[in-house]
Amino acid sequence: MSVLVVGSAALDSVKTPYGEVVDAVGGSAFYFAAAASYFAPVKIVAIVGEDFPLEKINFLKMRNADFSGLEIAPGDTFRWGGIYHQDMNQRDTSFTHLNVFEKFSPKLPPEYRKTPYVFLANIHPSLQMEVLDQVENPRLVMLDTMNLWIDTDLAGLKEVMARTDAVILNDQEARQITGEPNLIKAARDVIQLGPRTVIIKKGEHGAFIISENDFFALPAYPLESLYDPTGAGDSFAGGLIGFLAKHDDLSPAMFRKALVFGTVMASFAVEEFSVDRLRNLSEDEIQSRYRKLIAITRFE
Amino acid sequence: MSVLVVGSAALDSVKTPYGEVVDAVGGSAFYFAAAASYFAPVKIVAIVGEDFPLEKINFLKMRNADFSGLEIAPGDTFRWGGIYHQDMNQRDTSFTHLNVFEKFSPKLPPEYRKTPYVFLANIHPSLQMEVLDQVENPRLVMLDTMNLWIDTDLAGLKEVMARTDAVILNDQEARQITGEPNLIKAARDVIQLGPRTVIIKKGEHGAFIISENDFFALPAYPLESLYDPTGAGDSFAGGLIGFLAKHDDLSPAMFRKALVFGTVMASFAVEEFSVDRLRNLSEDEIQSRYRKLIAITRFE
Repeated sequence: MSVLVVGSAALDSVKTPYGEVVDAVGGSAFYFAAAASYFAPVKIVAIVGEDFPLEKINFLKMRNADFSGLEIAPGDTFRWGGIYHQDMNQRDTSFTHLNVFEKFSPKLPPEYRKTPYVFLANIHPSLQMEVLDQVENPRLVMLDTMNLWIDTDLAGLKEVMARTDAVILNDQEARQITGEPNLIKAARDVIQLGPRTVIIKKGEHGAFIISENDFFALPAYPLESLYDPTGAGDSFAGGLIGFLAKHDDLSPAMFRKALVFGTVMASFAVEEFSVDRLRNLSEDEIQSRYRKLIAITRFE
Repeated sequence: MSVLVVGSAALDSVKTPYGEVVDAVGGSAFYFAAAASYFAPVKIVAIVGEDFPLEKINFLKMRNADFSGLEIAPGDTFRWGGIYHQDMNQRDTSFTHLNVFEKFSPKLPPEYRKTPYVFLANIHPSLQMEVLDQVENPRLVMLDTMNLWIDTDLAGLKEVMARTDAVILNDQEARQITGEPNLIKAARDVIQLGPRTVIIKKGEHGAFIISENDFFALPAYPLESLYDPTGAGDSFAGGLIGFLAKHDDLSPAMFRKALVFGTVMASFAVEEFSVDRLRNLSEDEIQSRYRKLIAITRFE
């Protein structure tokens, strides 16, 4: 089964204690697609400017990503600049130039509308709603968001969430949406808003998944070298939904495995700048991290 | 095999969003003993004042805890007051009255000296060292500490750590001792200081154990109602070492199971004020949480 992602496309300038990149490929749509494309064909809806170096995402085409929904608009691509300090859990945004992204109005090409797996990456809730109005009978709609939309359009966000099957949030977002400090209660409160499944990401502390019938918790993949955390959440979502789409099975057991593959893909994403580590992974590298996660979590 | 604990004995006054207690049984020695005594006989070294209500720890005697090392000194028992707010991860200390604890100088009764399993609870490093000078050929010495000693006597702390087999730290302590923000690297740095095994506690995010030959990570037990986090760490240590002492087997597989039982005992400790939830657990309650942790972490 194929996966549709609607999200941002960016050129990121990122500085970490380990180095620096300028105008590197970034944005939720590309991180997601880079991870998901190891599992399933990906259809991309995003907007870039005329300055975007398309050759740098050619690797996605080679893995069957569909770019017919990638709009190339007059003007410059969305640019984001950020700095990570010694403690990689904290970052400062140095600049945000929306550029063509400001005019983004997602248009699904006709052949995209029946895509069974849909990921609404972190964009304004009203744009996420526009996407939902264009898809036909999706099998799974999963939504991501950020503190900005929780602050500025919580009502709109809740309206979209009510129409989704699953929501991916980090711990802060879950607490902010619900006002509940206990993360498990917060996740259950989110289920009351509509989605049957809630996935909580906790960075270095792993993730858990909660639904009416299941609870599953997984530690993070143990990384000692982490070069650039940008895009970890979108790569996580890509591995997760890509795996579900590949098997087209939404049982709790498959959601568990999907969470593990999400964790694996996020662990690769942060090992190099931009989407670089996700350009050329072997099946063996992916499977070996999956097996390692079994090995470090198993007890009798 | 039996377990020796040397730590504090206190009367705690604790306020949380769910209620309040005044002068309730507390202190690392009693929390540890309450948890460990479900697995192995515990010998206690601690100091209380003449005002301590000994009848309130009678339940420990009924589970074979040995009080011959419990010194009753003229004066008042150590008192601590704390307030937890809505977010239980944060607490404010309202008062600390050391009272008789200020004069604590651990003296091991002769029949304690050959105890094979030794827990040095969070007391001044120089007192921990005094204990090590009194034990004979222990099979496992495990140490706990706190930010106060890391701030005021890091050199002394490192000297004791060099003589231990295992160290239990929370995430902040591990980072503070090593200056390393990456927790896994920090734990490895602690191994360089001497202990062969390092256990990192992360509260609601679970725990991991690292040694030269193994790495094992476990999420926390999923609790939606948490009444009083006081003593969680000592109960965790009690379950962990109690289990190891019971089986007298220090293989990596047994350390993994021990970490799970530590997690189980901590999950009970926080469900009521003081040591109350640990007074009267059934074997079945303990085993059922162990099995639940298998169920929520397993994937194929």
